[in-house]
Amino acid sequence: MRSEILDMMRRQQPGQYLSGEEISRQLAVSRTAIWKHIRALRQDGYDIEAHSRLGYILRQVPDLLLPNEIESRLSTKFIGRKIYYRSEVDISTNDVAKQLAAEGCPEGQVVVAEAQHGGRGRLARTWFSPFGKGIWFSLVLRPSFRLQDAPKCTLMAAVAVNKAIKKFTKVNCGIKWPNDILFDGKKLVGILTEMSAEIDAINYVVIGIGVNVNIPAEEFPPELAAIATSLMVASRDKISRLGLIAAILGELESLYTEVLRDGFSSILDQWRDESVTLGQQVDVFGFGNHFSGLALDIDSDGALLVQTPEGVEKVMAGDVSIRFLK
Amino acid sequence: MRSEILDMMRRQQPGQYLSGEEISRQLAVSRTAIWKHIRALRQDGYDIEAHSRLGYILRQVPDLLLPNEIESRLSTKFIGRKIYYRSEVDISTNDVAKQLAAEGCPEGQVVVAEAQHGGRGRLARTWFSPFGKGIWFSLVLRPSFRLQDAPKCTLMAAVAVNKAIKKFTKVNCGIKWPNDILFDGKKLVGILTEMSAEIDAINYVVIGIGVNVNIPAEEFPPELAAIATSLMVASRDKISRLGLIAAILGELESLYTEVLRDGFSSILDQWRDESVTLGQQVDVFGFGNHFSGLALDIDSDGALLVQTPEGVEKVMAGDVSIRFLK
Repeated sequence: MRSEILDMMRRQQPGQYLSGEEISRQLAVSRTAIWKHIRALRQDGYDIEAHSRLGYILRQVPDLLLPNEIESRLSTKFIGRKIYYRSEVDISTNDVAKQLAAEGCPEGQVVVAEAQHGGRGRLARTWFSPFGKGIWFSLVLRPSFRLQDAPKCTLMAAVAVNKAIKKFTKVNCGIKWPNDILFDGKKLVGILTEMSAEIDAINYVVIGIGVNVNIPAEEFPPELAAIATSLMVASRDKISRLGLIAAILGELESLYTEVLRDGFSSILDQWRDESVTLGQQVDVFGFGNHFSGLALDIDSDGALLVQTPEGVEKVMAGDVSIRFLK
Repeated sequence: MRSEILDMMRRQQPGQYLSGEEISRQLAVSRTAIWKHIRALRQDGYDIEAHSRLGYILRQVPDLLLPNEIESRLSTKFIGRKIYYRSEVDISTNDVAKQLAAEGCPEGQVVVAEAQHGGRGRLARTWFSPFGKGIWFSLVLRPSFRLQDAPKCTLMAAVAVNKAIKKFTKVNCGIKWPNDILFDGKKLVGILTEMSAEIDAINYVVIGIGVNVNIPAEEFPPELAAIATSLMVASRDKISRLGLIAAILGELESLYTEVLRDGFSSILDQWRDESVTLGQQVDVFGFGNHFSGLALDIDSDGALLVQTPEGVEKVMAGDVSIRFLK
């Protein structure tokens, strides 16, 4: 009911009031009931002006990733058409999404939180997720492709988010292998892909995406200040999280649909185009191993090929961190 | 305390009583307390004879897969050293094991149930798991190898179970690709491997193993009568489930240790030796696909290679069922 009332107000001409009588007639509810819904919407942060004679007008929506606000901006068929929203999660949105996936939620289900208290990155690192200043969300997919293709979902997500950010904000970001998005060498976005599988049949893939949107530089904890940044810092402007998440979900659906139809090869090409890793000297760490070399390319599995004095090393995402050599 | 009392009785010479005084002295508990433990053990099904002057003697252990009974037969270092036992589970032991693994249980954790009400096989099929007549268990591993190697855990488990059964029962069984064990063309054992992973790093692998042990032929449901059998039917003898599960856990540990040290190539060779699929004409079904051909070999990924008139098809376990052509 509330989202129907909101939709009616949104469809009004700018500056035009919507009469209580009109709402009452179209939705077949009493004017007292409408008033109760308006009050609840105001408590959610909607700035709704009420005028005893003219009716209601929506002045501003809250700066929250509320499901009906996201949905009203979506152009997708199935991604984000079901949204589980929490203002805070004690764990991470990936953990919530894995639970929903195990319970049988549909493909395209999205979990969004304004803050994560157990936000996680790759290799069990934590992810700084302050309230209302980022886009912290997870997407459930149920792809029919092979187990060995699942890691490439991370590359697909990186391409989708990088494209959406460039289109929506004009920030000139790029992808660091395998799944970070950087601006000026600092991290804007992290992606954590997890999955559950049966032998080599995938049950579900959960793609967790954390975008640093409106975090002022001074609010990053000291240990992140030198390595992380936000879109607000990069563009010197506050960014609409609602507009951006809708753009990201749109790119994800369009790339995923492409993958299901044609496989990953075009994604790998797009990844190469958006990469800031290829052509760089990199340091590779992991499993007690450490070597340096030139990042040549990614192969058809999404592994990074590094030219070292001893030959070409193939580096898998599960194993390592890489660092650029300046 | 109970398992200590049991161990003391087991260490007695056959036919020799263990005095209450002796137990009381060694374990530093009162004779009333001992009597309470003995009563509890009897309720669990232990046949313990008590003699007012001579003390206690263990005549027979119950036909249950009780953790202390399994442990007293184990020769392993870590597999089965932690056992979660339930007389019945509403779901499957794999589902319980996945929960324990997600909560951080150690590698080698085993979940055993006397009956499963939600026993599952591959491709969401059900698995008949009557009380006390099979070995229904799951094992949690946390291998450090690559995601693409995980499906081969199923082949490893099939080799381990097949070897243990042959040694322990002399039933001449063989492995049907990828993960069933057959006797006389009928199914003795099913294996279901599931996993959770992060990009290409494995969080955990759960190997579920169901062995039809002491199920009389007439107790199989009609739809299984033609396709399933039990070790009791095959060997015409009741089999000790305790001895067999300890043997299986021992083979699993020895093969898994080998894989961690040397990789999967010896496992694949052993699998080939124990296979009843290779060299057979097979029918392959799956994903709307259906073809027939000669099962030639498995490749280094564990995929089945099938010679068809159009060429060699590579068949992955996630996709298909195979049926022998008679």
